[in-house]
Amino acid sequence: MPTALKRLLLGSPMSTAMARQERLAKIPALAIFASDLMSSVAYATEEILLVLVLGGTIALQYSPHIAVAIALLAVTVASSYWQTIYAYPSGGGAYIVANDNLGTFPGLVAGSALLVDYILTVAVSTASGVAAITSAFPALYPQRVAICVAAVLIVMTANLRGIRETGRIFALPTYWFILCLWLLMLGGLYRLVTGAAPLEPPPVPIQEPLTLFLILRAFSGGCAALTGTEAVANGVQYFRPPESRNAGITLIWMAAVLATSVLGVTYLAHYYHIVPGTEETVVSMLTRQIFGRGGIYYMIQAATAVILLLAVNTSFAGFPMLASIMAKDRFLPRQFANLGDRLVFSNGILILAAISSVLLVIFRGNTHALIPLYAIGVFTAFTLSQIGMVRHWWKEQGRGWQPRAAINALGAVVTGIVVVVIATTKFTHGAWIVVIVIPCLVWTFLQIRKHYDSLRGQLTLKGFLPPKLGRHPVVVLVGGLHRGVVTALTYARAISPNVTAIAVDLDPTETSRMQQQWPEWAPDVPLVVLESPYRGVIQPVLQYIDKMEKQRDGDYMTIILPEFVPAKWWQHLLHNQTALFIKTALLFRRGKVAISIPYHLDQ
Amino acid sequence: MPTALKRLLLGSPMSTAMARQERLAKIPALAIFASDLMSSVAYATEEILLVLVLGGTIALQYSPHIAVAIALLAVTVASSYWQTIYAYPSGGGAYIVANDNLGTFPGLVAGSALLVDYILTVAVSTASGVAAITSAFPALYPQRVAICVAAVLIVMTANLRGIRETGRIFALPTYWFILCLWLLMLGGLYRLVTGAAPLEPPPVPIQEPLTLFLILRAFSGGCAALTGTEAVANGVQYFRPPESRNAGITLIWMAAVLATSVLGVTYLAHYYHIVPGTEETVVSMLTRQIFGRGGIYYMIQAATAVILLLAVNTSFAGFPMLASIMAKDRFLPRQFANLGDRLVFSNGILILAAISSVLLVIFRGNTHALIPLYAIGVFTAFTLSQIGMVRHWWKEQGRGWQPRAAINALGAVVTGIVVVVIATTKFTHGAWIVVIVIPCLVWTFLQIRKHYDSLRGQLTLKGFLPPKLGRHPVVVLVGGLHRGVVTALTYARAISPNVTAIAVDLDPTETSRMQQQWPEWAPDVPLVVLESPYRGVIQPVLQYIDKMEKQRDGDYMTIILPEFVPAKWWQHLLHNQTALFIKTALLFRRGKVAISIPYHLDQ
Repeated sequence: MPTALKRLLLGSPMSTAMARQERLAKIPALAIFASDLMSSVAYATEEILLVLVLGGTIALQYSPHIAVAIALLAVTVASSYWQTIYAYPSGGGAYIVANDNLGTFPGLVAGSALLVDYILTVAVSTASGVAAITSAFPALYPQRVAICVAAVLIVMTANLRGIRETGRIFALPTYWFILCLWLLMLGGLYRLVTGAAPLEPPPVPIQEPLTLFLILRAFSGGCAALTGTEAVANGVQYFRPPESRNAGITLIWMAAVLATSVLGVTYLAHYYHIVPGTEETVVSMLTRQIFGRGGIYYMIQAATAVILLLAVNTSFAGFPMLASIMAKDRFLPRQFANLGDRLVFSNGILILAAISSVLLVIFRGNTHALIPLYAIGVFTAFTLSQIGMVRHWWKEQGRGWQPRAAINALGAVVTGIVVVVIATTKFTHGAWIVVIVIPCLVWTFLQIRKHYDSLRGQLTLKGFLPPKLGRHPVVVLVGGLHRGVVTALTYARAISPNVTAIAVDLDPTETSRMQQQWPEWAPDVPLVVLESPYRGVIQPVLQYIDKMEKQRDGDYMTIILPEFVPAKWWQHLLHNQTALFIKTALLFRRGKVAISIPYHLDQ
Repeated sequence: MPTALKRLLLGSPMSTAMARQERLAKIPALAIFASDLMSSVAYATEEILLVLVLGGTIALQYSPHIAVAIALLAVTVASSYWQTIYAYPSGGGAYIVANDNLGTFPGLVAGSALLVDYILTVAVSTASGVAAITSAFPALYPQRVAICVAAVLIVMTANLRGIRETGRIFALPTYWFILCLWLLMLGGLYRLVTGAAPLEPPPVPIQEPLTLFLILRAFSGGCAALTGTEAVANGVQYFRPPESRNAGITLIWMAAVLATSVLGVTYLAHYYHIVPGTEETVVSMLTRQIFGRGGIYYMIQAATAVILLLAVNTSFAGFPMLASIMAKDRFLPRQFANLGDRLVFSNGILILAAISSVLLVIFRGNTHALIPLYAIGVFTAFTLSQIGMVRHWWKEQGRGWQPRAAINALGAVVTGIVVVVIATTKFTHGAWIVVIVIPCLVWTFLQIRKHYDSLRGQLTLKGFLPPKLGRHPVVVLVGGLHRGVVTALTYARAISPNVTAIAVDLDPTETSRMQQQWPEWAPDVPLVVLESPYRGVIQPVLQYIDKMEKQRDGDYMTIILPEFVPAKWWQHLLHNQTALFIKTALLFRRGKVAISIPYHLDQ
C-alpha cells in the first residue's frame, strides 16, 4: 500500500513506548467487548421462538423458562471466567488455560474452536446487520453482498488504526443500543401494567410434537447469545492497570446486561404473544406493538442494525489477539505475532477480514446456515477452559482452592452439557462441519509447530562448518553486448577472478557479431556460446550450470544476470522474463547464487 | 507448466531444422484456412434474411440479389489477394502491404483492425457453435460459458502442438461440412425440380419500410461471410514450395466454395420461402424442409456445429502470425516474435485464447452484440491493403502493371464502399466501438515502438564508460546468528574486503545475545545495530542504505540477504517475506545490487 494512503487510513505510526498508554478504561472497554454479546440480544430470543413455534401455542409458553436457563448459563460462564481473569492476568482465553493445564492437544482444540467462532461471528453479524438494513430499505437488497464486504472493510480499517480509537468509535452506538433495549423493556412493562397489552394468544398450528428434544433445540438456538464472552479473558492486557480487576468488573457488567436483556425481551415477547415469522424480526414486532410505527420504532431498528454491524468488532479485537498468542507458541505463522506500526496485530486483522469476506461472498450475504455452527465451537472452548481451571486450582492448592475449583467445575459441567445438547440437537443443521474443520486446523497447527521446531535444529551453529568458496566460479549470462552486459561483466570481475560469460545462440548473425566485438570490451573473460536446438534460453543455461557443477571448486557458484530496469512499469511487459525463470529454477538447486545486476534506463 | 504435462499435451520439442518440413500441402491448407470462411455460410444467409424480414414478404425477395453481390465481392477480394500473394511471397497480409506501400500509420490501422477481427472471430464462432449444440441439447444451456471456454482451450492446445498436426485434426470436419452443404444444395434442387417445394410464400408483417438503407443493412450483415480471407495472404510461408502458387490456388478454391455455398443456400432459402426466426437457424429450417427431421438433418446440424467450433482455428493460425510480424517490426512485445518449441508462435496463441475467453465470459457466451463489430475491421483492412497494392504496382511499373493495378483499384473501391456501407448502416449496432478500439491500439503500438527505439540508444556501447566498483561496499542484513547468516557472511567476505553487517533491534534480549556471540563467528565484520521505533525491519534498513549511499566509494553497492529455502512450498508462508520487500524497494534505487544467499533446509 502506498505510504500516503496507508497513513491517511491508519494514522501515523506509533512507537513501542506508546503501548502502555493504549490501554482501555472500563467504559470504552465494555463498549468494545460488549458489542458482540449485546447484539445477540437482537436474535437470541428469535432463535428460541423460531424453534418453539413448531410446537404450536403451548410450546411458545416455554420461552421464559428457556430465557431463565440462558441467563443462568450467562452468570455461570461469567463467574467461571471471572476466576480465570484473576488467575491469568496477562490474558487467559480458553486456548491458554487449556494449553497450560490440560496439554497441547486440548489447547489446540480450544484455540481452533475459538478462531472458527471469531470468523463466524464476523460473517453472521455482518450478514444479520445488513439484512436489518435491507429489510428497512428493500431497494438495497441486490447490493447486500457488496454492503456486507464494505462493512467488514470499514471495521477492519478502524481496527488497523488501533484499539483506543476503536473504543472511541464504537462506544456511542453500543450504549445507545443498551438504552434502546431499556426503553423497550420499560415501555413494554408500562403498557402491560396499564393493561394495554393483548390478552389472548393467537392460535398457532402444531407442526412438530412438543418434546423435550424440541425444547432443548430451542435452548441450543438461544445459546448463540453467549458467543463473545471469551473476548474479555483473552484481552485482559488491553485494560488499564489493575488489569485483572478492570477486566473482571467489565465481564460482570457484560453478563448482567446480557442476562437482563435476554430475560426482558423474551418475557415481553411472551406477554405480548409474539409469533416469530420470516419477514419481520421479533424485536421489530415487539417495538411496533409497544410504540407503534413511529420515531421510536425507527430509532430502535437503527440501533439494532448498527449494533449488529459493530458486533464484528469484538472478533476484530479477539481473533488477532488469540492468533498472536498461538503464533508466539509457534502454532501459527510468526507474522501473526508481530505488532503493526499502529500497535495492533495487523496480519490477524487482515486475514480475519479476508476470510469472513470470502464467507459472505460465498454465502451471498445469507448466513442463516452458519448460525448452528457457531455456538458449538464456543461452548467446546468454554468447557475445555473450565476443566483447565479446575486442574489449575487443584495443582496450585492455594488458599480457598476448593470453592474456586467447585465454581469452575460447575461451569465445566454446565457448558459440557450444553455442548452435548447443541451437538445432538443441531447436528444435522451444520454442527457436523465443526467435526471436520477443527481436526483439520489442529493438524495444521501441529505441522507448523513441527516446521519451526525442526528449523531451530537445522539452523543451529553447533558443529557448523562455514562453506568454502575456493576460486569461486562466476558465470555471466549475456544476451548481446550492451551497457547492461558490460556493467554486469565489470561487477563479475570485481567479485571473483574466475569469470566465464555464456551466450545462447538464437540468431547466428547476432552471435558472430557479438563474438567479433567481444575482445574490445571483455578480453579477459572467456565467452562460451551454447547451442539451442529448440530456441529456448533457459534449458541450455541450466544444462551448462549443471555440467559446471561437477567441475567446480568450492561450495558455491554465482550466476550473474544483467537486467535493465525500465523507467515505466508497463515497459517490463515488453521484455522477456528470462532472468526471473532462471532465478526461480536456480532457487531449487543447492549452492547457487543468482545475482541480477540492474542497469537503470532513463526513459 | 510442469514439463511432463507440457510434453503430453504438446508433444516433443521440434528443432529449428524441422521448420521446412512443417509446411502444408494444399488439401490440409484449404481445411485450415477455410474453416472460418466456410462456417460463415452457417450464418451469412441468416444475417441477410434477419434484416430483410423487417421489410415483410416483398423485402425477402431481394435476398438472391444480395447473395449475388456478396459472391461478386468474394471474387473481387480473392482476385485482389491473389495478386498480393504473388507480390508478397513471404506473407502479405493487409498489415505488411499497407505498411510497405502507404506508411506506418495506415499499416498500423490495418494491423489493429485485423487483430481485433481475429479475436472477435474466435469469440463469435465459439459462441455460435456452442449455441448450435445447446439448441440441440437444451440441458447443456446453463453450462454454455464453460463449454465455450473449454472449446477455446482445446483449439488452443491443438495449435500449440503445431500447424501440420492441426491440419490433420481439422481437415476431416471441414470437408465433411462442405460435403453436407453440397448434399443440401443437391437435395434442395432435386425437390425443386420434382415440384415438391412449397409454392406460396407465407405472409410476413411489415415492421420497417422497404428502403435502400434496409437492403444495404442486409448486405452489411452478409459481408460477415468474408471475414477470414486475410489468413491465407498472411500465412503464405506455411505452404509447401512453390509457396505463392500453392497459396494462390488455395485462395481461389476457397473463394469459389464460399461464393457457391452462399449463393446456393440463399437461393434455396428464397425458393423454399424461409422466414428467419430467433428459435431455429435458417440452415436448420432448410434442412428440415428438404430432408425431414431424420438422420441427414442431424448429420448436417452436427457438421454445422463442428465447423463453427473449428472456425476459431483460422484465427489461431492468423493472429499469432500477424502478431509475430508486428513484433518483429517492434510494434508489439518481442515475446510474440519467438517461435515456441513446437515451431509455433506460442505467446500469440496463448493471448488470443485468453482474450477471447474473457470476451466469452463477459458476454456470457452470447455474442450477437459482437457480430456487427466484426465485418468493419476486416473491410477496413481489405481497403488499406488494396490501396497499398495499387501503390505497389505504380511504384514498380513492371511488365503489365496497369491491369494488375486496375484489379486492385477495383478491389479497393469495392471494399471501400463496403466499409462506408457497414459503418453507416451498423454504426448504432456496435460499429462505433471500432472507432475507439483501433485508435487506442495504434497509439499503444507506437508507444511500444518508441520504447524499443529508445532502448537501443540507451544501451549502445558508443562512448560508454563501465562503472567503477572501487572498494565495493557490501552490507549483510542479519536477523540472528545461524547457519544461513554465517553462510551469507562467508560469501560476503569472499566477494569484497569491505563488509558490514546490519541488524535491526526488534528484541533487545535477542540483539544483545547476538552481539555476544558475534566475535566467535565474524570477528572481522563490524556489526551495526539499527533502532526501529515502529517495529518494522524494512524502513531502518533502507534508511541506513540511503545514508551509506553518500559515503560510498564506487558506483555500485551490494546488499546481501541471507535466505533459507524451505524444503516444502507451504513452509514459505511461515516466514516473513522481508527479503522480497527489500529487494523490490532496492530495484528502484540506482547502483544497488541485492543478493539472496540461499541456505537450503532439509525438511
